[in-house]
Amino acid sequence: MTETNQAPATGTGSRAAGHPSSRGRRQFLRAGAGVAAGAAATVAGGAALGRPGVAGATEIDPGNLPPNVPMWGHYLGDGVDAEPYGSPSPHEAHVVRRNVPWLTATTESSVNFTPIQDLHGFVTPNGLCFERHHAGTAEVNPAEYRLMINGLVDKPMIFTMEDILRFPCESRFYFMECAANSGMEWRGAQLNGVQYTHGMIHCVQYTGVPLRVILDQVGVKPNGKWLMAEGGDASGMNRSIPLEKALDDTLLAFAMNGEMLRPSNGYPLRLVLPGWEGNMWVKWIRRIEVGDQPWFAREETSKYTDLLADGRARYFTWEMDAKSVITGPCPEKPVLHKGVNQIKGLAWSGRGTVKRVDVSLDGGRNWMQARLPDPVLPKCLTCFNAEFEWNGEEVLLQSRVIDDTGYVQPTMQALQKVRGVNSIYHNNSIQTWLVNKTGEVENVRLG
Amino acid sequence: MTETNQAPATGTGSRAAGHPSSRGRRQFLRAGAGVAAGAAATVAGGAALGRPGVAGATEIDPGNLPPNVPMWGHYLGDGVDAEPYGSPSPHEAHVVRRNVPWLTATTESSVNFTPIQDLHGFVTPNGLCFERHHAGTAEVNPAEYRLMINGLVDKPMIFTMEDILRFPCESRFYFMECAANSGMEWRGAQLNGVQYTHGMIHCVQYTGVPLRVILDQVGVKPNGKWLMAEGGDASGMNRSIPLEKALDDTLLAFAMNGEMLRPSNGYPLRLVLPGWEGNMWVKWIRRIEVGDQPWFAREETSKYTDLLADGRARYFTWEMDAKSVITGPCPEKPVLHKGVNQIKGLAWSGRGTVKRVDVSLDGGRNWMQARLPDPVLPKCLTCFNAEFEWNGEEVLLQSRVIDDTGYVQPTMQALQKVRGVNSIYHNNSIQTWLVNKTGEVENVRLG
Repeated sequence: MTETNQAPATGTGSRAAGHPSSRGRRQFLRAGAGVAAGAAATVAGGAALGRPGVAGATEIDPGNLPPNVPMWGHYLGDGVDAEPYGSPSPHEAHVVRRNVPWLTATTESSVNFTPIQDLHGFVTPNGLCFERHHAGTAEVNPAEYRLMINGLVDKPMIFTMEDILRFPCESRFYFMECAANSGMEWRGAQLNGVQYTHGMIHCVQYTGVPLRVILDQVGVKPNGKWLMAEGGDASGMNRSIPLEKALDDTLLAFAMNGEMLRPSNGYPLRLVLPGWEGNMWVKWIRRIEVGDQPWFAREETSKYTDLLADGRARYFTWEMDAKSVITGPCPEKPVLHKGVNQIKGLAWSGRGTVKRVDVSLDGGRNWMQARLPDPVLPKCLTCFNAEFEWNGEEVLLQSRVIDDTGYVQPTMQALQKVRGVNSIYHNNSIQTWLVNKTGEVENVRLG
Repeated sequence: MTETNQAPATGTGSRAAGHPSSRGRRQFLRAGAGVAAGAAATVAGGAALGRPGVAGATEIDPGNLPPNVPMWGHYLGDGVDAEPYGSPSPHEAHVVRRNVPWLTATTESSVNFTPIQDLHGFVTPNGLCFERHHAGTAEVNPAEYRLMINGLVDKPMIFTMEDILRFPCESRFYFMECAANSGMEWRGAQLNGVQYTHGMIHCVQYTGVPLRVILDQVGVKPNGKWLMAEGGDASGMNRSIPLEKALDDTLLAFAMNGEMLRPSNGYPLRLVLPGWEGNMWVKWIRRIEVGDQPWFAREETSKYTDLLADGRARYFTWEMDAKSVITGPCPEKPVLHKGVNQIKGLAWSGRGTVKRVDVSLDGGRNWMQARLPDPVLPKCLTCFNAEFEWNGEEVLLQSRVIDDTGYVQPTMQALQKVRGVNSIYHNNSIQTWLVNKTGEVENVRLG
C-alpha cells in the first residue's frame, strides 16, 4: 500500500487544523472522477473486485488519476428557499405510476400502477401510490366536506372535517391492495413487468379516527349489523361492510405518511379497512348508512366477485390472502452481474403478520429461507432479502410467503383447481420470473 | 326519530338493487350541503353536540335541508394519467417548509423547517423534510457518483452507485434532528411557532447498506479507530465518526420513504447515524477516510460544540438527548373549542426508545400520562396523545419524555444550570405553550 492520497491518515498535524490536507483532498477528487471507465468495465465484466463477497467496486489505481473532477462540488447549489415542497431528483424521472391505455375505455375509470420495482423498504411515497377510480379523482374542498351517518342509529349526524379532527386518532402502517392486483395473470403470463403484475398495491402510515369512535357518537341500534359506505365521487362508489370490521380496526383516515391524503387517494377522508380488498376503502366518503343486512351493491355483485367454473360466484371475499413477489430481479430489473446478486421482494397478508418467506431458484423444487428485516408489522408490507449466485444459466425465481395463521401462498395450479380461470380478482399465487442466459427476466407460467 | 332520509334502512328492496333509493340519496345530498352554517356555529359556540364526548358534530335537522349539493359529486374528475407523480391537494398549499430570511447571510448556508404542526403520525413526507445546507443542494448525477474509502484500510476502493446497490440493505425508521433544533430558545422564548422552535427534525424509513458491510470490503487496519466522512457539496462538509458507531447501526442510505433520496437530503448517498446529531449524517458523501484519531473538523470545533459558562466547550456531543414537544395545540394551532380538546405531540430519544410521555396543563406542577399509540420504535419519532378540557382559562401546556435509559427530559432552568446560555446546540428542554383566554397559543418561558 503506497497510496499517495493517504497523506491525511499519516500526518495528524494537518487533520487537527480542521481539514485533511489540501494535497490529500486534491488527489482524492482527481481519483474520484477518474474511475468511470473502470467501473463500467467492472460491471460489464461481471467480476466482483475486492474481497470475495456480494458486490463489486474498483480498487484505486494511483497510476491512473484523471485530470478532472465532477462539477457538483464546484459551485453553490440551490438554497433552502428553492422548494417549499420538495421533489425527486430529475435523474429519477422514470420512477412514476403508469397506466395501461388499452385496459379500460376511459382513464377516469381505470387504474395506474405503483413502480414497486424501483422502491426500497416498505413505505410507498405518496406520489407513487397507485390510483383506481370509477369516475376520476373527486376534487373536494375540505371546508365544504361533510360526512353523514344515518340509518339504524340513535342520532343521524353530519360531521365536518373540523369535527373529525377533534376525535382521538391512530397512526398505523397498512398495505392496501386492489382485489384485481395480478388479475390479468389468471389465464397465463400476460404482462411483462412487476409494476403491472403486482403494482396495484401501496403501503403507507395512515392516520385516522377509529370508526368505532364515530359510531359511538351516533349510536348503532341493536339491529344495525351492516354499514353501507358511499363515496363522494361521481360514481357514488359504495360497499357493504359488516359491523364487526367497523368496530375492529377500521379507520376514517385523513392522512397518509404524515400529510393529508392526496386527492387521488380520497382527500379529505377515506375508509381504511386493514387487510381487506382496496375497493372497500371508500374514498371521499360522504355517507355511512347503518342497516340490518348487506346492500349487494354493484361493486360486490357484478364486480369484485369470483365466477367459479361451475357458474357459482364467490362473494364477500374481503380479506386479502397472503402473497409475495420478487421485485428485483424482475422484468424491469435484469441480472447484470455474474456472481452474487441480491434478491429483494415484498410479502404481505390480510389476515395478519408475515412469518416466513422462502425463495426458489428452480421453479419451486427447492426453497431457501429469506431474511425479514425489522420491523415486521401486521397487515403491512414486509421486505425480504436473499442472495443468489448467478453463473449465466437459466434460473426460475419464485417466492412464497407463510403468514402467522399457517397459510402458505399457493401455486397458480393449486389456485386454479379450486377457482378455475374465470375470475379477475384475488390471484395471490406464486409468481415465476425466468432469468434467461443474457440476464433478462421474463414473466412465465410453469406447468 | 322520524328521519325521512332513513328510507334505505327500512326498505330492503331498493338496497338489494345496488343503491340506496334515489329519494334517500337526494335528501342526503341536500342535507350534506346545508350544514355549513350550523357547523360553524357549533365551532364558535364550543358545545359538543351528540353524546357527551370529545368532539362536536351536527345532528341532522330534516326541517332545514338546503337546495344545493356540493359540485364535487357531479362531474368526472382527473383520470389515472393526470399525474404520473402525484402531489398534495391545492387546499394543503400552506403545508410547506419555511425558512427564516434573517437567520443567515445566504440561503445556500441556511435551514428551513418541517411544518410539524400540520403533520400526523410519525412519518415525514419526503417533500417536507427540513433542509440544512452549508453550500446549497449539490446536484449529483448518480451515473457519475463515486464514493472513495481510503486511509488505514487494507484496500482503498472506489464504489459506484451500482456497486453500492449490490450489497444487502436494511430499511429502518429513524428520526433525524439538527443539533441546533430549538437552539434560538436558549436565552428566552424567541420564536412563536413550533415549526420554528422544533421543526429541524424529520423521520422517514431510510434504506441503505450497513456501513460495516462496506468497511468489511476495504478492511479496516487494526489501528483504524476513527472515520472522517466528507460531503460532496461545495463546502466539503466533514465530520469525525468513531469506528464503534460505524460498525453498529450506521447506514450508507440511498432511499427515504421508499424512493431514492431527495437531492436536498443527500441524493444519491448519505450517512445515517441513528440517534446522533444531523450534522454528522453527511450528505452527497464522496469520501470516507479511516484514521487513528479524530480530525477536529470545523463542524466539530467552532460549530456543533457547546460553550459553557466557564469558557470550556462540550464537544463530540453526538447522541441527541430525549426530547418531546406538543404539536397541537401550538402557536399555529390555537384552541378553537371549549370542552374536550386533543393534545398531540412527538417524542424521541437518540439513546433508545420512548417509554413514557407526561403532559402538564399547569406548567409542570401536575402531570398526566399520555397515550403512546403503536408502533413505538427505537431512535424513531413517537406519537403521543391526550385530551384536556378547556374552560376558557389560561393553560400552561408542557410535555416531558422519559426514555428506556430512565432519562427524564429536563426543564430549561435545570439545563441552564449545567450548560449556561452560550450554546446554540442541544437544547432538549421542556417546551411551554401558554393557551390564553382567547384560545391563542404563545411560546413562553417559565421561572
